[in-house]
Amino acid sequence: MSTFIATLQCPDQPGIVHAASAAIVELGGNILENHQFTDPGTGQFCMRTRFETGSASLDHARQVLAERLDHLAPRLGVRDEEQPRRALIMVSTADHCLADLLYRRERGDLPLDVVAVVGNHRDCEPVAQRYGVPFVEIPVTAASKDLAEERLRELIEHHDIDFVILARYMQILSPALCADLKDRIINIHHSFLPGFRGARPYHQAYERGVKLIGATAHFVTADLDEGPIIEQDVVRVSHARRPEDLVALGRDIERTVLARAATLMAQDRVTVVGRRTVIFSQ
Amino acid sequence: MSTFIATLQCPDQPGIVHAASAAIVELGGNILENHQFTDPGTGQFCMRTRFETGSASLDHARQVLAERLDHLAPRLGVRDEEQPRRALIMVSTADHCLADLLYRRERGDLPLDVVAVVGNHRDCEPVAQRYGVPFVEIPVTAASKDLAEERLRELIEHHDIDFVILARYMQILSPALCADLKDRIINIHHSFLPGFRGARPYHQAYERGVKLIGATAHFVTADLDEGPIIEQDVVRVSHARRPEDLVALGRDIERTVLARAATLMAQDRVTVVGRRTVIFSQ
Amino acid sequence: MSTFIATLQCPDQPGIVHAASAAIVELGGNILENHQFTDPGTGQFCMRTRFETGSASLDHARQVLAERLDHLAPRLGVRDEEQPRRALIMVSTADHCLADLLYRRERGDLPLDVVAVVGNHRDCEPVAQRYGVPFVEIPVTAASKDLAEERLRELIEHHDIDFVILARYMQILSPALCADLKDRIINIHHSFLPGFRGARPYHQAYERGVKLIGATAHFVTADLDEGPIIEQDVVRVSHARRPEDLVALGRDIERTVLARAATLMAQDRVTVVGRRTVIFSQ
Amino acid sequence: MSTFIATLQCPDQPGIVHAASAAIVELGGNILENHQFTDPGTGQFCMRTRFETGSASLDHARQVLAERLDHLAPRLGVRDEEQPRRALIMVSTADHCLADLLYRRERGDLPLDVVAVVGNHRDCEPVAQRYGVPFVEIPVTAASKDLAEERLRELIEHHDIDFVILARYMQILSPALCADLKDRIINIHHSFLPGFRGARPYHQAYERGVKLIGATAHFVTADLDEGPIIEQDVVRVSHARRPEDLVALGRDIERTVLARAATLMAQDRVTVVGRRTVIFSQ
Repeated sequence: MSTFIATLQCPDQPGIVHAASAAIVELGGNILENHQFTDPGTGQFCMRTRFETGSASLDHARQVLAERLDHLAPRLGVRDEEQPRRALIMVSTADHCLADLLYRRERGDLPLDVVAVVGNHRDCEPVAQRYGVPFVEIPVTAASKDLAEERLRELIEHHDIDFVILARYMQILSPALCADLKDRIINIHHSFLPGFRGARPYHQAYERGVKLIGATAHFVTADLDEGPIIEQDVVRVSHARRPEDLVALGRDIERTVLARAATLMAQDRVTVVGRRTVIFSQ
Repeated sequence: MSTFIATLQCPDQPGIVHAASAAIVELGGNILENHQFTDPGTGQFCMRTRFETGSASLDHARQVLAERLDHLAPRLGVRDEEQPRRALIMVSTADHCLADLLYRRERGDLPLDVVAVVGNHRDCEPVAQRYGVPFVEIPVTAASKDLAEERLRELIEHHDIDFVILARYMQILSPALCADLKDRIINIHHSFLPGFRGARPYHQAYERGVKLIGATAHFVTADLDEGPIIEQDVVRVSHARRPEDLVALGRDIERTVLARAATLMAQDRVTVVGRRTVIFSQ
Repeated sequence: MSTFIATLQCPDQPGIVHAASAAIVELGGNILENHQFTDPGTGQFCMRTRFETGSASLDHARQVLAERLDHLAPRLGVRDEEQPRRALIMVSTADHCLADLLYRRERGDLPLDVVAVVGNHRDCEPVAQRYGVPFVEIPVTAASKDLAEERLRELIEHHDIDFVILARYMQILSPALCADLKDRIINIHHSFLPGFRGARPYHQAYERGVKLIGATAHFVTADLDEGPIIEQDVVRVSHARRPEDLVALGRDIERTVLARAATLMAQDRVTVVGRRTVIFSQ
Repeated sequence: MSTFIATLQCPDQPGIVHAASAAIVELGGNILENHQFTDPGTGQFCMRTRFETGSASLDHARQVLAERLDHLAPRLGVRDEEQPRRALIMVSTADHCLADLLYRRERGDLPLDVVAVVGNHRDCEPVAQRYGVPFVEIPVTAASKDLAEERLRELIEHHDIDFVILARYMQILSPALCADLKDRIINIHHSFLPGFRGARPYHQAYERGVKLIGATAHFVTADLDEGPIIEQDVVRVSHARRPEDLVALGRDIERTVLARAATLMAQDRVTVVGRRTVIFSQ
């Protein structure tokens, strides 16, 4: 038996579920899990269906689904659950998110193929080595930025990367790269967005005296800290915590929120609709 | 346009979604919201579909769905969203859950027709009156218990009650009544079950020194405090809180958890599968 | 036995606790609860001490504490716990926060003397009446704003009000009034500040696609939505919730957060230090 | 300047704070942080004071505090904040708690001297090595249990261990060892106690259909899973999660809850009073 995950996005209209379920019946499939949502703002219909079949190959499944849903002109994805998504992780100096992601992957809790770790500094190389993941240093200076992005693009293409995870990567990507990798780069922002955009958010939070601090995993767009939000969480803090305490407490939420977002991405549970995400959680 | 909610439960097999979606297409319907789940333990398939149609009456929808799904021998429900579920609320002396439920209903946040409030004491009568809901006193003593349940059954039948909400009702219902109203009575237990079963759970929690206290909304079965759980939540407490503080803090969680459970019931989002519930949350 | 609550604020220096505890020993007092904090940014020391004594009157306690701490030039408050703080609640049309505060007070969970409810509309009058609290209508138009604030000041003075609770009061108070009642007006903002300042925060939250929405209780200052934060909380929301759902879910957090802030104020657990609050929670 | 942490426990009586603060004044000290609590059930007074002084040595501080508080016959502890507590971590096969504790220590977020890791299996040795902590294998069989505990006692004595952390150590310690190390061994239980005592708590939780699962850090006593609770937390789970999912989700809460408890212990913020703990959180 194979288990396939099909994702579908198209303008809403009557009969979509009927057409999709007909295709799955034709493939001898049984639906294990199905989520769907119609966004009222854009009229977009989104679906994620996980089904098992003993008779159909992946190629056949792709073909039948594409044909039966062709009249909907959908954005359609079909993959075998056994073939994990391929990801690239990018870091700078802080390693807490990276260490956590690699630990979870090694532990079997994160079904993701981490092809390489890219850093603009070498600080995180030991963590990558510890978990047997190739580390690639791509330094970034004002002068070398274009070249660095060129190398990054090559890496992504060469390794057939599905998506990129910025795990406290402190460089800003160019608008062109953001556009070309639209909906394929996720970032962890160390703030409960849109609360404290920009630099030193925990210090901002301290100054403002908030009673909860948080972290936000979101897609990267050219509009900094403004991409569609995937996951957020918060932790309670008291007046007795200094800015450096908030930074330390924040590391916990950052790694947790990013791990959740990475897991959702790895399982094809995230769809972007306009400025918002649809999350088909378990 | 009418909006109908269809709920379906049957043993899992390939083609169910296809059959159901075919029926909805036949009814000129468009699916607005769809949830489904197959319980691995029991092999039961559960579905909740909300769809709109401009052409089909409720009777016609019921007929078509029943015919098209007949081969699955399902437990099938179809209703018009505009016709709220009919509920009976039962209380003893504490009014915090009742007051909150009636406030929400009046506010338009709880789509439920509260037909009457039944109390074994009159303490809550003023709250019922305040919100214009008939209050029925049914006193319960060891001697009158059978008679009391007889009156309750009559009320439920006479008013065509869909489900009963025990809002801190302190009497134990007979096994016969629990069996006859299986999956139709919900209760709020003032503990994070299965933590502190039985009497004075907050005092038990204090003695045990727990750092979080909670409340549990669950179905009522003959096996006290053991019915399928619908919703739970907790709140953090410190060592400085005395048992009476826990009781007061607990009132907040109780009313919140019961309101959530009542809302889920009112929207047909709860299915019982074995000892567990499937919750199709929004 | 009487129980007194003493609050103290002064620049930090060695010996403060020693001086305060000496005064309490002199009063034949036993400390039941003591909190203290030195704010590193401002160097301000804050203390809240709750002690019982069988021999000293309130006046005597005030005199002894004032004398023994005189060299610190402190901001000092001493009161009998049995004499609740006196509050005024202000509302516009939404009644969920008001109804909840009055319910808690009636229930005995909020140790506060609610002297009156002031509304710029009459919508909330029935709720105030239900709980036996005088309702005062003070309409506000562009032309009558000064007059309205004059009446409000008279009310506050005449009834010896300790603090004012804006329970979804939709008018902006003048900078002069904010200044004169500094640290004595609290507000509930229907957003997790500083996230969505200004109008229609739940619609802003929906547009931005946040995964948690929240509410913030804060002091009112001339700088709108920028006063020191007292309490905040959040609730998880999914993509399936429309703006009107967020508004409804938000009502729950608003009333909960405001009730917690009002309770903290009623128990003298809130101190303002610069732009931040120190909260001596239980 | 040195910073000392003094902890005090004795039967409550008037004048304790006065006596303690007098001693600190005598030491030329300034209080940075002070917490106190009187447990109403046992009448025990507990205090934790963190103060800085430029003139007194640790020995002198110990002597002065002991003399000035001698009439209270207290349980008194005084230590220099710069000298971290010494801990032993015990493990079996699962490494998620160990890896997290050692990562935090390396990161500087857990002020603890981890002297050694003891395992009854060698599975966790690589993690200990990775962080440069000696790993000691002490196998345990029915026959070797006494001998194993003897070796453990020697290790604890030889390394002057302050407390032991059971980080998913799956052996039961003898009543004698529990008694001799009273209030000095903490454990992480993979359940929201007292919910699911005993084996396979996540499977129990699944069977029962709870909507939140949790973890509990507690002191170890001869009465299994019944020692005083230090910290607890929960995470929401849906019906769609299988027992193995709960196990995976549980690992996150376990490591978080144990890290919090270890941090509280490392900072002398935990006092046992009867069956309960007093936690002086920041």
